[in-house]
Amino acid sequence: MFPQSVRIILVEPEFAGNIGAAARAMKTMGLSRLWLVAPQCDPKSEEALRMAHNAEEILEQARVAQTLAEALAGTGFSVATSQRLRRQDVPFYTPEEAAEMVLERAAEHEVALVFGRESSGLTNHELALCSALSMAPSATKLPSLNLAQAVMVYSYVLYQASLRPEDRHFQWQLAAHEELEQFYAHLAQSLTDMGAHPATTMEAYIDKFRRIFSRIPLESRDVNLLHKLLEEAVRDA
Amino acid sequence: MFPQSVRIILVEPEFAGNIGAAARAMKTMGLSRLWLVAPQCDPKSEEALRMAHNAEEILEQARVAQTLAEALAGTGFSVATSQRLRRQDVPFYTPEEAAEMVLERAAEHEVALVFGRESSGLTNHELALCSALSMAPSATKLPSLNLAQAVMVYSYVLYQASLRPEDRHFQWQLAAHEELEQFYAHLAQSLTDMGAHPATTMEAYIDKFRRIFSRIPLESRDVNLLHKLLEEAVRDA
Repeated sequence: MFPQSVRIILVEPEFAGNIGAAARAMKTMGLSRLWLVAPQCDPKSEEALRMAHNAEEILEQARVAQTLAEALAGTGFSVATSQRLRRQDVPFYTPEEAAEMVLERAAEHEVALVFGRESSGLTNHELALCSALSMAPSATKLPSLNLAQAVMVYSYVLYQASLRPEDRHFQWQLAAHEELEQFYAHLAQSLTDMGAHPATTMEAYIDKFRRIFSRIPLESRDVNLLHKLLEEAVRDA
Repeated sequence: MFPQSVRIILVEPEFAGNIGAAARAMKTMGLSRLWLVAPQCDPKSEEALRMAHNAEEILEQARVAQTLAEALAGTGFSVATSQRLRRQDVPFYTPEEAAEMVLERAAEHEVALVFGRESSGLTNHELALCSALSMAPSATKLPSLNLAQAVMVYSYVLYQASLRPEDRHFQWQLAAHEELEQFYAHLAQSLTDMGAHPATTMEAYIDKFRRIFSRIPLESRDVNLLHKLLEEAVRDA
């Protein structure tokens, strides 16, 4: 539901390829509403469509405004992104913090993420027009993410933040304790069948293998495969 | 320290622009060691250098290998990335989970993040060569991030995970309680100077303004600016 409330606004984008790549990043991350403020290139050019890949409809439906103020009309909250620390004295939120705010406010009204020109970013007044400022942490001092990369990072972080906690992590279908015990029993029997002679007892020998296998998150199908390995080994013995 | 232990491996990249954009993403996020397995294009072409922006040295120093196995030699842990759910039955970690594992293992030995071909990703055997698999969550079913975008997402998430917790959030320099109280006292005095007639008491009137200003994280400089506003207003009165 939230994506319909989120506008991605590109202010005076200069390269059509970046608009296309931004559209692709948006679509992958569930966003669809692209606004272009006085684009300096053709957002439906061949280059834009090529970079958009399967997201051409986002380019087709992009809204064009003449000023940032016009593109912000109707929104209740907006985040200006910047890769340039123009002023050290202004609070810049991280993308993760901005995403939390955007999601919270998107439940109330329309919201916007605003990206500046490739060559010069947003003006100080454009930054001031927005409700909050954000900057992605970076290992370099100079501005270094390009426009499409910045849209990628923010779209990704926003989508991540919108997922339910259980969808943010892989859900293992881990094998139960008994399944593992059956495997260790099978391993002991197989070693006996193979004619193994443990230095002390078979139980102590198996305990050494337990140290390896207990370190692995094993799913039921993994345990089944290990059973198969033992069957192969015994058949071969 | 960790970035020297992380290899970004691109398997048979087809478009030079993607190699350049990947280098730019790497540099911004503090990574520098690029490996190319049998590149299908010129990684030092004009297009690659243009997209690399300030990261040309990563292209210059990129290592070339003939096979993924060769590029993995010397690593102790590797994550294969995929945007294609080839097999639903294999555990795929999220980029965040993969980043935690990569960082933990990078303290022990060299590690690698592996990205496949633009057209067809990694083969099943290439996926199997790596220690773990990862996929970025996506709102679309079809593969949709391009190669450079995938490198951007993983590099960003890895850099984010490498930051100390206090560096992951904006550090407010919030004004102390006394500073705010001084402002409210100044506000009461200014309203009196302006000839205000509160409906009940001045204290109750000020309490209404408290409801607004207490909702804002105010830094000392913000409070100073509000003092200035009162001075301007009284001068004008």
